[in-house]
Amino acid sequence: MYKNKKEVETWFRYLRDLICNEFEKFEKKTKFKKKKWRRKKLSSGGGEISILRDGKVFEKVGVNISTVFGSFDKKFSKQIPGTSKSRKFWASGISVVIHPKNPNIPSLHFNTRYIETGKKWFGGGIDMTPNVKNFNQKKDFHMTLKKMCDFYDKKYYKNFKINCDKYFYLPHRNEPRGDGGIFFDYLDKDLNKNFSFIKDVGLTFLIIARQLIKKNLKKQWNKKLKNLQLIKRAKYAEFNLLYDRGTKFGLNTDGNVEAIFMSLPPSLKW
Amino acid sequence: MYKNKKEVETWFRYLRDLICNEFEKFEKKTKFKKKKWRRKKLSSGGGEISILRDGKVFEKVGVNISTVFGSFDKKFSKQIPGTSKSRKFWASGISVVIHPKNPNIPSLHFNTRYIETGKKWFGGGIDMTPNVKNFNQKKDFHMTLKKMCDFYDKKYYKNFKINCDKYFYLPHRNEPRGDGGIFFDYLDKDLNKNFSFIKDVGLTFLIIARQLIKKNLKKQWNKKLKNLQLIKRAKYAEFNLLYDRGTKFGLNTDGNVEAIFMSLPPSLKW
Repeated sequence: MYKNKKEVETWFRYLRDLICNEFEKFEKKTKFKKKKWRRKKLSSGGGEISILRDGKVFEKVGVNISTVFGSFDKKFSKQIPGTSKSRKFWASGISVVIHPKNPNIPSLHFNTRYIETGKKWFGGGIDMTPNVKNFNQKKDFHMTLKKMCDFYDKKYYKNFKINCDKYFYLPHRNEPRGDGGIFFDYLDKDLNKNFSFIKDVGLTFLIIARQLIKKNLKKQWNKKLKNLQLIKRAKYAEFNLLYDRGTKFGLNTDGNVEAIFMSLPPSLKW
Repeated sequence: MYKNKKEVETWFRYLRDLICNEFEKFEKKTKFKKKKWRRKKLSSGGGEISILRDGKVFEKVGVNISTVFGSFDKKFSKQIPGTSKSRKFWASGISVVIHPKNPNIPSLHFNTRYIETGKKWFGGGIDMTPNVKNFNQKKDFHMTLKKMCDFYDKKYYKNFKINCDKYFYLPHRNEPRGDGGIFFDYLDKDLNKNFSFIKDVGLTFLIIARQLIKKNLKKQWNKKLKNLQLIKRAKYAEFNLLYDRGTKFGLNTDGNVEAIFMSLPPSLKW
């Protein structure tokens, strides 16, 4: 049940701990390093970055949580619903990016967020970027997402998949960033239902990530496949720096640079 | 002496050959690979990419020449001088980016270009991005540029250095991309003098590059220093994808993706 914004913030923190613990189980020695940050300007709030680097399984995993609040500047507020009477906002979210070592494991990205202005809404998504084509894996991935979505609303999966395909696209290369997934925003009706949905997206991401890692972890890889991964990652970085709304939002609103760039690949090849 | 645009294009091609030949001398086996491209849409023209990868000295050097012509679109033309009566343009240029293997050698960037609309002008620059602070090296670099500039106009160096510092700056990190250099545009007076200047910028770049490589090539480096280089390169990529005008120009005008991203580092660490 949705009670209030604090409840949502608590869930994101809980999910962060869950995800970090589960991912650390894949590693023997390597642990997440945590770092808190506070906003300097523009009202207040902050967040916590958790990064695991150079593990046996993960080359880099970043898990960010943040809660920021204050007043949007005049120009920016025009892009945000519910700001006609007041530019005040409160926003909390979690985002996760996995860059595995083994190129047989896809890169994975997930985030969920909650925003309050004059309106209140949830947003987020899950998407996958493999380095090798795998038809069945893509099918299973989308089927899992569809099943989860269908439980809440029969229209969700179809719409959210379309959003995802539109969003994660590199126009200069005329190609998608990866295999798609779901991407949604402005879920402002029935906060009870949608808070449950948001929780389910987080847990489903964790299940999907574990399965994809387990399935592909033992697969052999050679220099050629690693090279493919590095080239795919360069495109990933192109997308995030050239087009990603979250990156632009962060850079334009005094976000923490380390947190904003958490999603960028640990290594790549241009 | 400046005769006409074809003369400028010929110079850029000649300089390209000179640079590629000189750089290949540093390598024993590794050679530049050349690739021609043509514009698909928006009138015509094209260019040639020369890339040398994974050499003993250079991890990646890219040398691009291009000559493109046609008509700017209405919106874009407003940013370009000399387009009030006609949006027609003709543009030719050369650009070079060096990403050396040894982190003791700075990364180097150079370009010169010539544009004709209702007006005619030259633009370009040279800048250096070292991974280790070296006060004397920076001083020598700037002194060489100053001497070259002073021969043409006593105001050039001062103004072009300020332009360069302003341009190659990462606001989100509150730090410069490197040690600066010179950066200039709209040199539309005395095309004779400025064509000579443009030639000198190209030759001076080659001299500077050779000296910097020779001086630093034998210096030992360890994993820690390589790591510093990879981190510096990530910032280089941030600049090019987030802010660089040339990148935005290329992506917005159907440029060749491989040519546009030629400048991006071969490897890095986020």
